[in-house]
Amino acid sequence: MAQQVNPPRGMRDFLPDEKARREAILAIIRRTYRAHGFDEIETPVVEDADRLHAGLGGDNEKLAFAVMRRGLTVDDLREAASPLALADLGLRFDLTVPLARFVATHRAELPPVFRAIQIAPVWRAERPQKGRYRQFVQCDIDIVGEAGALAEVELLTASVAAIRALGIAESTIRVNDRRILTAMLAHFGFAAEEADGVLVTVDKLDKVGPAGVAAELRDRGATPSAVDALVAFLEREVTQAADFGADAIRAALPEGLSTPAIDELAAIGAAVNAAVGAQAVAYDPWLVRGMGYYTGAIFEVVHPSLGYSFGGGGRYDGMIGRFLGDDVPAVGFSLGFERLVDLVDLPASTGDAPVALVHAADADPSIVVAVRDRLVADGRRVRLLKRPKRLAAALDALAASGVGEWVAVDSDTDPSAVEIRAIG
Amino acid sequence: MAQQVNPPRGMRDFLPDEKARREAILAIIRRTYRAHGFDEIETPVVEDADRLHAGLGGDNEKLAFAVMRRGLTVDDLREAASPLALADLGLRFDLTVPLARFVATHRAELPPVFRAIQIAPVWRAERPQKGRYRQFVQCDIDIVGEAGALAEVELLTASVAAIRALGIAESTIRVNDRRILTAMLAHFGFAAEEADGVLVTVDKLDKVGPAGVAAELRDRGATPSAVDALVAFLEREVTQAADFGADAIRAALPEGLSTPAIDELAAIGAAVNAAVGAQAVAYDPWLVRGMGYYTGAIFEVVHPSLGYSFGGGGRYDGMIGRFLGDDVPAVGFSLGFERLVDLVDLPASTGDAPVALVHAADADPSIVVAVRDRLVADGRRVRLLKRPKRLAAALDALAASGVGEWVAVDSDTDPSAVEIRAIG
Repeated sequence: MAQQVNPPRGMRDFLPDEKARREAILAIIRRTYRAHGFDEIETPVVEDADRLHAGLGGDNEKLAFAVMRRGLTVDDLREAASPLALADLGLRFDLTVPLARFVATHRAELPPVFRAIQIAPVWRAERPQKGRYRQFVQCDIDIVGEAGALAEVELLTASVAAIRALGIAESTIRVNDRRILTAMLAHFGFAAEEADGVLVTVDKLDKVGPAGVAAELRDRGATPSAVDALVAFLEREVTQAADFGADAIRAALPEGLSTPAIDELAAIGAAVNAAVGAQAVAYDPWLVRGMGYYTGAIFEVVHPSLGYSFGGGGRYDGMIGRFLGDDVPAVGFSLGFERLVDLVDLPASTGDAPVALVHAADADPSIVVAVRDRLVADGRRVRLLKRPKRLAAALDALAASGVGEWVAVDSDTDPSAVEIRAIG
Repeated sequence: MAQQVNPPRGMRDFLPDEKARREAILAIIRRTYRAHGFDEIETPVVEDADRLHAGLGGDNEKLAFAVMRRGLTVDDLREAASPLALADLGLRFDLTVPLARFVATHRAELPPVFRAIQIAPVWRAERPQKGRYRQFVQCDIDIVGEAGALAEVELLTASVAAIRALGIAESTIRVNDRRILTAMLAHFGFAAEEADGVLVTVDKLDKVGPAGVAAELRDRGATPSAVDALVAFLEREVTQAADFGADAIRAALPEGLSTPAIDELAAIGAAVNAAVGAQAVAYDPWLVRGMGYYTGAIFEVVHPSLGYSFGGGGRYDGMIGRFLGDDVPAVGFSLGFERLVDLVDLPASTGDAPVALVHAADADPSIVVAVRDRLVADGRRVRLLKRPKRLAAALDALAASGVGEWVAVDSDTDPSAVEIRAIG
């Protein structure tokens, strides 16, 4: 008995049925985004290590798989200051850092406003667990070069269209704006340099509640009076804004808080809900998003059957400038394919059900392929099967897998006079 | 001025036009192979290092990109016996080793004869040069579990169908059989253990001629009398078999050479040429193929405009058994996508030419997306464009890129009464 042979830890193979299902779902997403004015691009799966570790990937940088330099000697190992000094490349951990690099590389060839689709795998060396893989597919759209709210509205409406095209009902996109969060923390009395750390804790509000947030902030040594003000506010009963107007947003915020971001976010929400129907997007005053590079609107899409979001994004105006030298406004939305794939209920019939070609084990190969090619020429997809001992059972199994017709072939078969028979 | 920002050395980005062209070509290959009874699968881009370096990849193993273990310390670097001791994974250098591993993993879930499609990138750390990349796409089909000639006939006819569906005329698949080559070397007097080395040299016949082959073999210290016999035979004038019969193959071989592989190869060639038309495949007595794992028929597809093959394969009956414990017959054919992509002349119109939506810079986002969504609902693909100063020039550029219609949108536009105009 051979030893168990598996794909690498935390990674998966896809057998034909699952591969076909995944590709059918991706085709719907791709088609929807293309219709809405986005164009697909592709970058290599690896990027130069110094770009992956430029501080733009947040915690994900630590999860990057590192690719070793070629031609290393044992002396190189002895002299290296750290393991990463031996790596010149790494597998991408998201599609945003590669997009920023892509725009920096090709800026002169791209239109002033560039709408990109990226549908591709990324890799993270996380501890494998249920539903979390080390290779997984993301479906990103980004609009680069548009500073105005049109970009957010386009992105959110296109995302809603894709989610609806997949038949996923009841999902909601929660939106917020980093600038409102920042203004709120200042309002409570946190120092500007505390803000990033405080947001990391506030992001856990759903899980630990106001008391948990307060405890963690005190542990971290955050300004005590600001912690008190924040927690008093969090313990207030908040009703979420239904119509997404500026007044509704203000009602969810501390009294007197003022920033132009409120009106901008209200306009985005109103335009999206007008375009796609109310309640597709909802304002969430405590939506934080983990990545430090967001500079404006942020989004997260949730579904009642999932305990986590299955997509998100936001505006990241400073990031491309890190590679390019010039600042370029950008906003993106990423669907986590592995998380949404189970929510999709594809129709069983894909319209190209194969016809089974059941051939005798010793049938003349010329006859078998002649029959096959005749069926293919008629626009049929053919599934070949060596005639098994128990033919009836095999035909039943074919029928169960969606094959409704078959032909029998042996060396006496006349390819020009083949009879297609219904199974059952 | 920012520094130049490029993708990693030897790797490429694909901008929208080229990405769309590549995907359109891949869709034709995928559709053809699916129609002919093959099913697409997917494996992770990395495999465990000990599988990649099990001696099945020939010279390509040395070109594998190695992925470093996570959590290494400086002490680990000091103590490692070699650089590869620090790597637990590697990027796949072909799709055959992953397929063998896949079959070993999933044997119980696969049909007795399994026809696989793999269309996916592979990575090799070769010195980059024109037309040779470090990430490139291969399109493989393999038949696993069929020992008889039907597998070769199916594989070759499906490959010819794919090449023809791409509109590539004048290509030829050269075929040979490793067992005939081995018998020939024995006939000339080479020892069995010399065979692999001698074949490496014979593989250069096209480039260096009989005299070059003789010189290299003598340098290598090959059996002198056998080298003389081989070269005397090579210098004989050989006419290539046109009808591919057993007699024609025998005529190209040393007199009296006998192996059952001759009749088997003749039957394969005859069946393929009968199915797809004469001269699609041709017998080449000096086709070698580099990989040591081939055990029977071998193939290589050439085109008069290329100085190298753009695909190849063969039977490799022993390989899957290396992972599985049981021997499993298998035969595969790989199209080198980067080499064939330039041979394909796709029709310019793909049937989904977009309509341009030209909007004023300050147009209300709600109006812009309402017009866009109306066009999308009508089945149109929309390309958004902020109205430039020189509108006429922009429309000309759109027309040149295949966009024939446009709509103008500003904040006064009534989305329910938009007029689609022809460009020009």
